[in-house]
Amino acid sequence: MSMRIPKAASVNDEQHQRIIKYGRALVLDIVEQYGGGHPGSAMGAMAIGIALWKYTLKYAPNDPNYFNRDRFVLSNGHVCLFQYIFQHLYGLKSMTMAQLKSYHSNDFHSLCPGHPEIEHDAVEVTTGPLGQGISNSVGLAIATKNLAATYNKPGFDIITNKVYCMVGDACLQEGPALESISLAGHMGLDNLIVLYDNNQVCCDGSVDIANTEDISAKFKACNWNVIEVENASEDVATIVKALEYAQAEKHRPTLINCRTVIGSGAAFENHCAAHGNALGEDGVRELKIKYGMNPAQKFYIPQDVYDFFKEKPAEGDKLVAEWKSLVAKYVKAYPEEGQEFLARMRGELPKNWKSFLPQQEFTGDAPTRAAARELVRALGQNCKSVIAGCADLSVSVNLQWPGVKYFMDPSLSTQCGLSGDYSGRYIEYGIREHAMCAIANGLAAYNKGTFLPITSTFFMFYLYAAPAIRMAGLQELKAIHIGTHDSINEGENGPTHQPVESPALFRAMPNIYYMRPVDSAEVFGLFQKAVELPFSSILSLSRNEVLQYPGKSSAEKAQRGGYILEDAENAEVQIIGVGAEMEFAYKAAKILGRKFRTRVLSIPCTRLFDEQSIGYRRSVLRKDGRQVPTVVVDGHVAFGWERYATASYCMNTYGKSLPPEVIYEYFGYNPATIAKKVEAYVRACQRDPLLLHDFLDLKEKPNHDKVNKL
Amino acid sequence: MSMRIPKAASVNDEQHQRIIKYGRALVLDIVEQYGGGHPGSAMGAMAIGIALWKYTLKYAPNDPNYFNRDRFVLSNGHVCLFQYIFQHLYGLKSMTMAQLKSYHSNDFHSLCPGHPEIEHDAVEVTTGPLGQGISNSVGLAIATKNLAATYNKPGFDIITNKVYCMVGDACLQEGPALESISLAGHMGLDNLIVLYDNNQVCCDGSVDIANTEDISAKFKACNWNVIEVENASEDVATIVKALEYAQAEKHRPTLINCRTVIGSGAAFENHCAAHGNALGEDGVRELKIKYGMNPAQKFYIPQDVYDFFKEKPAEGDKLVAEWKSLVAKYVKAYPEEGQEFLARMRGELPKNWKSFLPQQEFTGDAPTRAAARELVRALGQNCKSVIAGCADLSVSVNLQWPGVKYFMDPSLSTQCGLSGDYSGRYIEYGIREHAMCAIANGLAAYNKGTFLPITSTFFMFYLYAAPAIRMAGLQELKAIHIGTHDSINEGENGPTHQPVESPALFRAMPNIYYMRPVDSAEVFGLFQKAVELPFSSILSLSRNEVLQYPGKSSAEKAQRGGYILEDAENAEVQIIGVGAEMEFAYKAAKILGRKFRTRVLSIPCTRLFDEQSIGYRRSVLRKDGRQVPTVVVDGHVAFGWERYATASYCMNTYGKSLPPEVIYEYFGYNPATIAKKVEAYVRACQRDPLLLHDFLDLKEKPNHDKVNKL
Repeated sequence: MSMRIPKAASVNDEQHQRIIKYGRALVLDIVEQYGGGHPGSAMGAMAIGIALWKYTLKYAPNDPNYFNRDRFVLSNGHVCLFQYIFQHLYGLKSMTMAQLKSYHSNDFHSLCPGHPEIEHDAVEVTTGPLGQGISNSVGLAIATKNLAATYNKPGFDIITNKVYCMVGDACLQEGPALESISLAGHMGLDNLIVLYDNNQVCCDGSVDIANTEDISAKFKACNWNVIEVENASEDVATIVKALEYAQAEKHRPTLINCRTVIGSGAAFENHCAAHGNALGEDGVRELKIKYGMNPAQKFYIPQDVYDFFKEKPAEGDKLVAEWKSLVAKYVKAYPEEGQEFLARMRGELPKNWKSFLPQQEFTGDAPTRAAARELVRALGQNCKSVIAGCADLSVSVNLQWPGVKYFMDPSLSTQCGLSGDYSGRYIEYGIREHAMCAIANGLAAYNKGTFLPITSTFFMFYLYAAPAIRMAGLQELKAIHIGTHDSINEGENGPTHQPVESPALFRAMPNIYYMRPVDSAEVFGLFQKAVELPFSSILSLSRNEVLQYPGKSSAEKAQRGGYILEDAENAEVQIIGVGAEMEFAYKAAKILGRKFRTRVLSIPCTRLFDEQSIGYRRSVLRKDGRQVPTVVVDGHVAFGWERYATASYCMNTYGKSLPPEVIYEYFGYNPATIAKKVEAYVRACQRDPLLLHDFLDLKEKPNHDKVNKL
Repeated sequence: MSMRIPKAASVNDEQHQRIIKYGRALVLDIVEQYGGGHPGSAMGAMAIGIALWKYTLKYAPNDPNYFNRDRFVLSNGHVCLFQYIFQHLYGLKSMTMAQLKSYHSNDFHSLCPGHPEIEHDAVEVTTGPLGQGISNSVGLAIATKNLAATYNKPGFDIITNKVYCMVGDACLQEGPALESISLAGHMGLDNLIVLYDNNQVCCDGSVDIANTEDISAKFKACNWNVIEVENASEDVATIVKALEYAQAEKHRPTLINCRTVIGSGAAFENHCAAHGNALGEDGVRELKIKYGMNPAQKFYIPQDVYDFFKEKPAEGDKLVAEWKSLVAKYVKAYPEEGQEFLARMRGELPKNWKSFLPQQEFTGDAPTRAAARELVRALGQNCKSVIAGCADLSVSVNLQWPGVKYFMDPSLSTQCGLSGDYSGRYIEYGIREHAMCAIANGLAAYNKGTFLPITSTFFMFYLYAAPAIRMAGLQELKAIHIGTHDSINEGENGPTHQPVESPALFRAMPNIYYMRPVDSAEVFGLFQKAVELPFSSILSLSRNEVLQYPGKSSAEKAQRGGYILEDAENAEVQIIGVGAEMEFAYKAAKILGRKFRTRVLSIPCTRLFDEQSIGYRRSVLRKDGRQVPTVVVDGHVAFGWERYATASYCMNTYGKSLPPEVIYEYFGYNPATIAKKVEAYVRACQRDPLLLHDFLDLKEKPNHDKVNKL
């Protein structure tokens, strides 16, 4: 059963009601000035705001990045005015009334964008796409649990923060949120407290038009502690009581199901118009008169409302000072852990992190996933920042280092057969790719650099997580994603498991580095680059053994994104190879070399390459000062290669369920065929140079019957 | 409480056990021959297979496309041997023993790929990516409900089929499945029966490593009828009983939680090795001996096992004959509905569908979403095949036609304020984009052409649904997706809501038509094309008013994907405009026209354009027989435009929260600046023609301070 809290004794109740009313009026004034925004939930949640920022959250207005602060995440980010207004009330210096008024304005410098953005003080993560914030919160809660389990010592609880997250009904409908909720319950994250702004109204009307499930029961089925608060748009004391129960809960995260009223107090209360519309001048006046305010006063907060929060900055200063002093003592008492902790606070890896990595590249044929595995294991074993994991394909990706401990509720250890606790650094995410990447974002956002999340699954399934990876790009959050089985030679699973188009998305996504190395040397170079970059990377890796190109491929050159793998002076044709299909490019070039001066290019990361100077790029792509026929050979679609190539020998359909040994043959990937097609192309270009602009597709679509005779 | 069925009386029990055993041995033999595949769940689910194909499903082996057949979807598609083997046993002609043996072979013609594929007999949808199949099943169940509510008459229950779906633990962890489960419960789809192959083992070990929730309780919270069967790897009779209860259930879908044993009977039973590995010769021999079989006999099904299903083809023939006779009588009794039904069976829209569409293009400025809305409304109002819907942004996208009836459980009508029942054709999907598109695939797959699903939300949020849209591409399923607010001029919501990179994905995705029209004329042309194509399309549309180009833009030419919007003889420079940003391209071209002969191109659909002959493409891109500097102006990133342009004036960062009126200015989209940059580029190309290959980015990144002074 959920806990339904009896109405708590109402200390300060009159004052609470004043704050609620002035807060609502302020929301309406802000939304009114430019005739848009999301007033309804902000108005309905004022009591929750008081409960949080007056009575619950441990934070420091003068030091919004205080390391051990409680994290607050507004998963229903469109309700941002709620957060901005309380930031203003509790004394966050940057959040002035002028800033509040800049919401929806032309001000390029506004700190009040339409959804909270991580760049701004006291915003933990950028939210907006529904379901992301609550998933990030799970990551933040894992971060706290892991740091506490790793560094806290008797008498030295240096990490104690909790994670509070507000959600609306929408977040609770989105898949990634449902995945994260399930995982958080499984993990028993008792430091996570979710407040559900349950106003029963969505954009299109009553929530009942699309969802009539029993939310509380659903959470309980997922091992959550559930507390229900009935009159949560008004009753601050009961919300505070609920938060106290939640804080005391052990082994389960808590959902506080707060029954609120959207647009509370105004003419549009309980109506979907309150969701995303200004109320209109008359309505605002009406509300103010009803509330006994002067309707002519706009953007007005009386002094006693400010005074209600006035102790917060000093309280925060004290909190920070005490914590710093505790940490200083900790560093003395535990110098090794202490120095490590300080380095992680600064966002630093151990200075010698590169020394942990294998110094020797593979020489024999090996899948590129094998090289990546060695690197991740070495880094993971030696750097506590690394928190790796997989979406139930650990058996195939296999990043666990020797002696790895799993991050898990220790009470599950016997039951599930894995060994671990909250200090563990390998996560079995379950088949929840979207949540995995959104949780990785939360880990990365705890404090930039304190954690280096590494996720893994088949490359194909990162498409499920694309919206979370986008959020990492937008927020400049660093994670490394290990995507294996990245090509049609994944084999028998068939076209559903064979990515042919995903690279286009990730190459196009700002701040995301999609890397597809041809061999272990390139893996070595690119993995190190991924560790160094301040952004997220995706390593796209082969399931099967690939050729190695010793003396030709280069870890160092790969870090520039593209280079000449095999040169030919005054080339007549160039072949670009990539990933597992470099083998075909390379061998086709050998055949072509009998007739043409043929150059082979490797471009494992288009973004890194595009960041090079035009001089460098030309020295690779057009070394002889002219454009020669350049054919890209890729097991993915050609889309996007036009920047570097003049024609393609690439996939032009989805894949097929066939063993790796024959699937390339089926699709026409063999050196002789490629060489023949390229030769014809080169001769055609000699006759008609305009072809260099037509980006011809040189690969025929497979023909069952023809191929079967091979 | 879940229903726990007491063990049912065991008719045929001995025979069931024989089939189970021979089925398991056959699975092992098949997997053994090439040393790979997924044996475990297929072995554990044999009893479920008997319960379904012997006692429950209404189907016709000789007519696998029988319209009113029960649909079976294997959402855990890697267990495909389970389905293939029962197809063989029940007499599906194409599924011979030779075919079964082709699993994981080199045979290009195999009907037994690693996951079930829709192209093959008696496979309703391609499955594999987890969470998709169960979502498709919700679509299939909606299809049935809608057809029945629309066409059945007293004494004429022409549509009675049910939808059976098998899932594993993985499907129940994936977000899209959780969204669909929630919606199916909300809709009260009592024709949907999900069998949960609950073997408690995943790839990486016990399911407990990643999920310990109470699955049954979770379904119950979502308004599902839940039945638990304890010994479901053996106890056929109890599963049959559970299925009977499920069939009788009203107003709720049913989950039958079947406790099974993975790899049942073999040495790897209950172990994750059973999930995706061959057992090894010794293990197979051991199992056969234990089962009293001759271990030397491979791929062996005794005649009595075949005989057990021998009545199925004749039963199916009778079913089809009776149904055809019923339909014939129906057509006589209800000629209008009858003819309509027959046309929909043939997958046809009304022959005069184009006549329903507005004949007049917009002349004044209007958002492109407004033009699309008129078209969808007109088609929806007049064609019963259309089943439209939205992910809780109906207020913004607004596709509901006059008098629209919602598809919904009629008992919710009063409660939620909408008017509808199961004959309704507008779905409030909730904030569940991924489920929405996967459900649309299920609707499309019911019988190709019987339904035309149309979904809608902001274009940005189709990224959540990308894996489902990919599955539509792979299966050649037709849906039309209406994505509005498709650019940075979405405005104040900020970068989380402003797609800049998504078009790259959808343009790269085989069989998906991403269309971004510049004005209402192009919307008219492209929407009609989307209705005609046998594939899925995405219409990418503006929130705000855009210029119209009467006499220049063209519905007909837009259907070729690209054309010259404004010509100039012997052009010195070309500008490509797209979507809402055509305005900047067009106006910049006017300015440039004072100095250069300037041509303007419109390329609203790259896939349609690429499908044209090289002659046509050259007549647009290189009309004068040479490559001239060609600059694309787009509010998305440039990635992918290299095929048509030589340089870009495109987004090179994420967006920003700013009102639509100023956001373009902020990012440097103004005709004068563009013209200036292009002029400099043209002159640079004259000095250095190699620049035509460098694909320069002509747009500077925004500079707060500089821009603020404008």
